[in-house]
Parts: sequence; C-alpha cells; structure tokens
Amino acid sequence: MTTRALFRLRIYLDDTIAIGPGKVQLLQAIQAHGSISAAARALDMSYRRAWNLVDEMNQSLTEPAVTSAPGGSGGGGAHLTATGEAIVTGYRNIEALAQQATVAEVEALQALLKR
Amino acid sequence: MTTRALFRLRIYLDDTIAIGPGKVQLLQAIQAHGSISAAARALDMSYRRAWNLVDEMNQSLTEPAVTSAPGGSGGGGAHLTATGEAIVTGYRNIEALAQQATVAEVEALQALLKR
Repeated sequence: MTTRALFRLRIYLDDTIAIGPGKVQLLQAIQAHGSISAAARALDMSYRRAWNLVDEMNQSLTEPAVTSAPGGSGGGGAHLTATGEAIVTGYRNIEALAQQATVAEVEALQALLKR
Repeated sequence: MTTRALFRLRIYLDDTIAIGPGKVQLLQAIQAHGSISAAARALDMSYRRAWNLVDEMNQSLTEPAVTSAPGGSGGGGAHLTATGEAIVTGYRNIEALAQQATVAEVEALQALLKR
C-alpha cells in the first residue's frame, strides 16, 4: 500500500471559498487551454459550472482573475490576468511551503500506517 | 466581509483517506465525550457512520486509534489509545506549522480579495 499526504488551502470570503483547490485547478486549465469551455471539458465539468466558478472568483477579487473575449456561449477565448497568474503561482508556492515545513511531522503520522 | 484561511491535510493510504480532517474531528469528539455514540451525536452523524470511520481508521493503522469497551450497540465507552492521541496532537501541530510557514504568502493572496 502506498501513502501520500496532500495539503489543501481554502481562503474564505465570508462563507464562500474565494480561492481554493477547485478554483485554482480551473485557472490552470484556462491558462493551458485558452478558453473557459475548453477548460471545462478538460476538467469534465459543465461550461455553466466553470463559468459560475470564474464569475464567483472574479466577484470576490478587487481585480478579475480571468478576462474573456466576447464570442457568445463560450466561443471567445479567455485568459488569466496578472491577478489570475498571481493566484496560481502564490497558491502552488503556499502548498509547497506548507509541505516543506511539515515533512518530519507528516512522516511521523505516516509511520503509524500499515504499508 | 471577512476572510480566513484554512489548511487541511489528508494522508491517503492507497485511495482511502487514512488521516484527514473528518477523522481527526471524530477522534477529538470521542476524546471529549467518551463514547462513539456520544461523539456521533455531537457531530450530528449517525452512529453507524461514526463506527465505520473509526473502523476504517483502525484498519489502516498498525495499532488502533480507538478502543471500545464491550457494551452492545454503542452502549460501552470508547477512548483513544496512545496512537489515537498521537494522531490528534500531530495533526493539529502540522496544521499550525503549515499556517506559520505561509503567513506572508497567504496574506498576499488575501490582499487580492475585496474586503
């Protein structure tokens, strides 16, 4: 049996997850695929759900994370703004820092597991 | 609007979460209430679900985290073993370390949010 440890950070704005694993994954998919519809397909998510997540994120930020070119029903492209890029980079960096800071303690818990 | 950041660690054994936020919360409730049934009530969870979570956790560990006194249908008490105590303490310590290691980076993300 193999064991792995995953850290997940969620930043709440009131009761909404403004920045969390699902939204950051979606930002990365938009970055990779160049549109919300292609990102939604890649993540096996409806276009409507992806659009709503982007909208929720943009609403919670002082500057939007994603800008879309007009094009009707997801036809236009979308790309990350500087804010969107900063969120992806910052979030991945935070996960890495958290992991590095707790290597010994996580290994101590993993040592309690059957292998 | 208020913002808060939460770290959650999940340690997987193959595809099962052997140690994660739900299981640690249940361990703490057993510690506080002295039985699986009282812990389940406190967490608004069925006895069956709580018992299954404890069983899943105990199965994934080399030593059990919880021992129950016999008593039939949850009548007997339950308490944490030294392993169970080590999991609760270790897990909370890891969350605190992760948070401390990323204060500045998390604040930088929070600064992007509307307040």
